[in-house]
Amino acid sequence: MSNQEEAPIYMATVSAPTNIACIKYWGKADKHWNTPTNDSVSVTLDQSDLRAVTTAAASSKFTQDRLWLNGIEDEGAPTNKRFRACVDGVLKLAKNPQKWKGCKIHVSSYNTFPTAAGLASSAAGYAALVAAMSALVDAQEEFPGQLSTLARQGSGSACRSLYGGFVAWRKGGEKEDWSDSLAQQVQDEHHWPELRALILVVSDAKKDTSSTAGMSTSVATSTLLQHRIDKVVPDRMIEIEKAFSEKDFEAFGKVTMRDSNQFHAVCMDTYPPIFYMNDISRMVVRIVHAYNAWAGEIRAAYTFDAGPNAVLYTLDQYVVEVGALMKHYFPETGAVSDYINNAEYIEQVQKFSLSPELLEATDKTGRVPASGDVKQFYYTKSGPGPLTLSMEESNLDPKTGLNTYQP
Amino acid sequence: MSNQEEAPIYMATVSAPTNIACIKYWGKADKHWNTPTNDSVSVTLDQSDLRAVTTAAASSKFTQDRLWLNGIEDEGAPTNKRFRACVDGVLKLAKNPQKWKGCKIHVSSYNTFPTAAGLASSAAGYAALVAAMSALVDAQEEFPGQLSTLARQGSGSACRSLYGGFVAWRKGGEKEDWSDSLAQQVQDEHHWPELRALILVVSDAKKDTSSTAGMSTSVATSTLLQHRIDKVVPDRMIEIEKAFSEKDFEAFGKVTMRDSNQFHAVCMDTYPPIFYMNDISRMVVRIVHAYNAWAGEIRAAYTFDAGPNAVLYTLDQYVVEVGALMKHYFPETGAVSDYINNAEYIEQVQKFSLSPELLEATDKTGRVPASGDVKQFYYTKSGPGPLTLSMEESNLDPKTGLNTYQP
Repeated sequence: MSNQEEAPIYMATVSAPTNIACIKYWGKADKHWNTPTNDSVSVTLDQSDLRAVTTAAASSKFTQDRLWLNGIEDEGAPTNKRFRACVDGVLKLAKNPQKWKGCKIHVSSYNTFPTAAGLASSAAGYAALVAAMSALVDAQEEFPGQLSTLARQGSGSACRSLYGGFVAWRKGGEKEDWSDSLAQQVQDEHHWPELRALILVVSDAKKDTSSTAGMSTSVATSTLLQHRIDKVVPDRMIEIEKAFSEKDFEAFGKVTMRDSNQFHAVCMDTYPPIFYMNDISRMVVRIVHAYNAWAGEIRAAYTFDAGPNAVLYTLDQYVVEVGALMKHYFPETGAVSDYINNAEYIEQVQKFSLSPELLEATDKTGRVPASGDVKQFYYTKSGPGPLTLSMEESNLDPKTGLNTYQP
Repeated sequence: MSNQEEAPIYMATVSAPTNIACIKYWGKADKHWNTPTNDSVSVTLDQSDLRAVTTAAASSKFTQDRLWLNGIEDEGAPTNKRFRACVDGVLKLAKNPQKWKGCKIHVSSYNTFPTAAGLASSAAGYAALVAAMSALVDAQEEFPGQLSTLARQGSGSACRSLYGGFVAWRKGGEKEDWSDSLAQQVQDEHHWPELRALILVVSDAKKDTSSTAGMSTSVATSTLLQHRIDKVVPDRMIEIEKAFSEKDFEAFGKVTMRDSNQFHAVCMDTYPPIFYMNDISRMVVRIVHAYNAWAGEIRAAYTFDAGPNAVLYTLDQYVVEVGALMKHYFPETGAVSDYINNAEYIEQVQKFSLSPELLEATDKTGRVPASGDVKQFYYTKSGPGPLTLSMEESNLDPKTGLNTYQP
């Protein structure tokens, strides 16, 4: 065996996407395995704007496992249950397990989610951790989706970020070890290329209840959640997978909006109640319904996660209209180039002339255009699962294995 | 028979209270009979501040039925189904039916609910109509609660305003004609004299969805409402009637808050969703939970009807503290005497010194004291059902039978 000085450092770097659920995950069936009380399904977002980038390295010359997040070392992480489940889980699937005996692991991860945006980055982060480790050790799944069962132990919704397109998380529970609680790609990112997403980052003073704490309280106190789990979600899963597969936006949008509303209804039925949406979120809902009613069809569908931000799904042919409508009611405070992430889209939105009849309809929501309520727009679409990046994009020094990323 | 000139005018004047439900009515079982999908129960409020005052008159010299509301004649009312159900229904129960043959009915009603307050006045209004007609013709119920079945046809929750104290509305449905959908007094207004209510009138720009339209959409679209009706409300009715009877504020307050939250959860689960509470309403909820957590017991319990106003139930021993706490976070814009309805209560609230530890706890809600979000406080308690007033308080001219009330 080579001495420590000469021991090689193996490295792999990946990027991973976030995802936005259409049928929401809310409630844990098993806290240890981090499994859900119901199936869920989400759209994987394109990584060009919002992604986690993670480098994993292994070497026998490292003296301990280490993790850097956004350039800062997290000293507790290597003993953290979630981190260990992902790292140790992938190591067990290594093609050549002998190669990694005696190695320690270094990981550096950063994400391109502006902290101010309040967009959940844990799904992308844990998906990137599992994907980077998997690339590093050339992990071999024993069954399809096995890697997603590891990401799930990092953060539930992370399992869905291991695939592109439209991805279901099957709740599982038939198997003792919950190995059937895993992600499955329903359709890949090429299936419905016209699908678009517009994220409205909504300003909010109040710190939200964390998802983990919130869903635990909901399971314990909501008298509606179990009915949702047993009677509502199973039908909705069938309905939305069919709608997505048939590219039926009317059906897709309707069930997406209804399930977002039901998730927030369960939060409100929790004791004490949990409020994630605020008056701005609700105004976006009203405008979307007024817009769809004016159009005589569903052209935009909102969904809200555990916070006030709105994600609007729409189609390529309406995304400029939707953006122009939202920008009309929620105009920028400063430069528009700081407000919307895509220059070409900005240009189209600014050129677009909204129908006076549409504005007459949406004005009835009571909204008066005012800046400051929305902080940012992200224009994006569906995209692929984790991507392997080149050595140049690594966040660890190939010679020392130490973090090189500085925010 | 005397000629028209000499025909007498018979008159009766009553006042009737409003009521605030603890277990909410949301969903009609039968639209024609205006019956509910679930039992509900409410506290009848004292009439000294909020009441409807109605005079009913009958005379063979009147040429047609007429109705004045707040001094203005409502020409459509005499053919309105709700009005007719109440007036004709009571006439059928007259002790001496012959006496009223050939008579027409005049009704004048006003309420002391400031329009700006947005407090529902229809419960008090239809209860007063039925009670005034009943006093006029000396109606004889064929079974207890029969008059409430008439008020129910005017406005569902009006049936509960025919009794004081704590009043249940049994949904009925065993009988073809829904005559078993009626109000029953659970406890009278003397049973729990320490109970207090503080109404916070919350400012809101947006016009709410009407209850009738809203509950119809909920019945048609919410996938949670039926579960609430079948599985949740029956247990809650038993629980809250026991709590009220035992004067157990902890249990009474908890089920009241949970049921308010569930009603608004069902509204959110409706498609399109219905929002009655706004950010100010939700802030009141947060402050109440922080206050109760600080106290280590439930000292205040909120409930919200189909609008943003908060009703806080509390006990005599805490009502000054609750008022001082709310006034701290929602101070008056102008004179305090215009802001709170009761001079003695104002004095006590202004003298009260809030615990710094309490404020430290409630500050964590994120609320920063600011005026303008709450328009008015009403301090009140539980009170009796309709009261018969003297001739001096009549709203109709005893000689002409025409309205005398001017707002």
